Amino acid sequence: MDPMQVVERQAQQTDSRILLLVMDGLGDIPNAQGQTPLSAARKPNLDRLAREGCCGRFDPVGPGITPGSGPGHLALFGYDPAQYEIGRGVLSAVGIDFPLQAGDVAARFNFCTLDAQGHIVDRRAGRIPTEENRRLVAKLREVQLPGVQVFVETESEHRGVLVLRGEGLSPRIADTDPQKTGVRPLPVRALVPEAERTAALVAQFVSQAQRILAGEPQASGLLLRGFDSLPRIPSMQERFRLRPLCVATYPMYRGLARLVGMEVVEPPEGLADIPRVLTRHVEGHDFAFVHVKYTDKAGEDGDFERKKAVVEEMDRLLPELLAARFDVVVVTADHSTPVALASHSWHPVPALLWAPGRVFADDVVEFSEKACIAGALGRLPLRFLLAEALACAGKLAKFGA
Amino acid sequence: MDPMQVVERQAQQTDSRILLLVMDGLGDIPNAQGQTPLSAARKPNLDRLAREGCCGRFDPVGPGITPGSGPGHLALFGYDPAQYEIGRGVLSAVGIDFPLQAGDVAARFNFCTLDAQGHIVDRRAGRIPTEENRRLVAKLREVQLPGVQVFVETESEHRGVLVLRGEGLSPRIADTDPQKTGVRPLPVRALVPEAERTAALVAQFVSQAQRILAGEPQASGLLLRGFDSLPRIPSMQERFRLRPLCVATYPMYRGLARLVGMEVVEPPEGLADIPRVLTRHVEGHDFAFVHVKYTDKAGEDGDFERKKAVVEEMDRLLPELLAARFDVVVVTADHSTPVALASHSWHPVPALLWAPGRVFADDVVEFSEKACIAGALGRLPLRFLLAEALACAGKLAKFGA
Repeated sequence: MDPMQVVERQAQQTDSRILLLVMDGLGDIPNAQGQTPLSAARKPNLDRLAREGCCGRFDPVGPGITPGSGPGHLALFGYDPAQYEIGRGVLSAVGIDFPLQAGDVAARFNFCTLDAQGHIVDRRAGRIPTEENRRLVAKLREVQLPGVQVFVETESEHRGVLVLRGEGLSPRIADTDPQKTGVRPLPVRALVPEAERTAALVAQFVSQAQRILAGEPQASGLLLRGFDSLPRIPSMQERFRLRPLCVATYPMYRGLARLVGMEVVEPPEGLADIPRVLTRHVEGHDFAFVHVKYTDKAGEDGDFERKKAVVEEMDRLLPELLAARFDVVVVTADHSTPVALASHSWHPVPALLWAPGRVFADDVVEFSEKACIAGALGRLPLRFLLAEALACAGKLAKFGA
Repeated sequence: MDPMQVVERQAQQTDSRILLLVMDGLGDIPNAQGQTPLSAARKPNLDRLAREGCCGRFDPVGPGITPGSGPGHLALFGYDPAQYEIGRGVLSAVGIDFPLQAGDVAARFNFCTLDAQGHIVDRRAGRIPTEENRRLVAKLREVQLPGVQVFVETESEHRGVLVLRGEGLSPRIADTDPQKTGVRPLPVRALVPEAERTAALVAQFVSQAQRILAGEPQASGLLLRGFDSLPRIPSMQERFRLRPLCVATYPMYRGLARLVGMEVVEPPEGLADIPRVLTRHVEGHDFAFVHVKYTDKAGEDGDFERKKAVVEEMDRLLPELLAARFDVVVVTADHSTPVALASHSWHPVPALLWAPGRVFADDVVEFSEKACIAGALGRLPLRFLLAEALACAGKLAKFGA
């Protein structure tokens, strides 16, 4: 049995408060000099937390598995990401605050450029401006389908979301995005017999959309992918008796937080605005998830110095963050994004857990991937990090007599 | 959910190539001087791989569990050995290249020496020569049973294999080997009602065999054990989209490799012949399993110096092995065979994972059990080592959006 089921059973509400600071994609691998952006950064505050607390490394999904942002965050929130899968369509919909309902079928779409033969020339339609996207989405909203409601929403640039609402819909529809150029978009196809009617409706939508977009110079076609419906995820309130708060700038992470029942407040305007938003909203919450995107962006760009600089800036802000009283502080990542790979990776994420007088204070004196190897937390599945934090916060009752 | 299910789903075929070098029973425990055969060996090439790569320790089945060769190798190949059990009879049959079919019931037998009262004097019949075994097996092939085909096969020395083929057979038959001398062989007994008919057939075989062997000076009786049928094991091709090659001298390991779908090629004639066989057959494969038996033999004999010498000889051969291009190299064991115990043990096996630019290069600078404690891989179930290798080889797609 997964020990997280015992964690659920033993969870109790208390006044103690946990900060979960997630530096997206923070984990890295050493360069030729043996350094990572985290190890090379000047970060006296993070190092102090590591010194006073304990450290370890965590696998978001499992050894060798590179997680997307969805699985990485579910694990951070105490869920087994292999059990709760969230499709791209749902992630995009919740990420733009679309009020997705149970049974809705959502898909992510890209505007794309088609040539005269209907072959894909550019899968992202030259990354049209978001304003241009809004103009086209307004036209696509004219499409009507029999027996279902159709929602077409702008995400950003060439990206958008299609949602169908009605009885008996199925999300088991194959992508129409062939993931390459020089070929036609794939036909809409049901993956299971129950999805035949939904597939027929989506095919009608695509065909009408195609007529509307014909003649557009850039966004002359649509590619759909990631059809999915809202998964049934028990909330963090139900599972862990927490009153969780989300402070995040980017829509996807706000959407993920909402999926597990967090209260999502105003997005901070950049790193420096995070302490203000946190301090303003933290009352009444005993768990605060703070998301910092910029470490991941720098990793994706393969930019060692910028990733290091984000760590340093975050470190400077840390005293302000901690001004809101926290009994337990966790600093970690949803996955690694090594500069050398310029993409998400499978390497376990470093983590520090700070909780004076409650935590096993190990001999780790700085926060880095290598230092975490010798940390008292060892190497564990990431969902167990929440269990350690809950325990340190006194939120888990003794199991058994 | 077991993360290996996610690994299966995300597996993708690529041209990159993995070497899995298994030094059977390599793991050991420190002697009074704090040394193991591995730590004491001069092995500059293995040390270089450990220095450039990362290290860790792996439990073949689970903490405290001493694995046989079957479970140890299944774990190396990415399978949960507790989920797929392989009986001794099946192992022996596939180990001699017997074309075992679904539904066949196979058992391992020993020739034994019985006294005039039918009591066992020697459970191994004085380890008769294999040629003598062949002569007796030819006589046993005269045995006929109603409604089933009977196959009697020589394994080596006193060891052989019995296979029954027919409809409705069951392998749930108890061993007739009492595992001690001075008593009679146990009667053939069904473990479940469905096996009654099979037990009756086996009893007929034993009784006829007994008549044939009566009067033989050494091999005057038969002891049967490990009745089993072929398990349904999905192949490594199906699970991980690999095209795996097996280079192994000993039948059992060749048989295990065949069970998971590996292409098994000519057996090397001793250690020094391995590079030739590997180089000759590796084309067209993206995964090569190389098995070295002699470390285990030395461990079983309690011979520290010989076990150390095998490591040193393997180390000298390593450059030749690596001459076939490999992107990822794993060196590890199927289980520990400590010299001090002179038998398989439950201690986790040391492992090194080498994959330039992809692996987390830790601070381990030599390949030894102790050094591996501080390695970046930590301590994990052995099946996850394949996941780490697949990831380093770029063979696992990102999981989730």
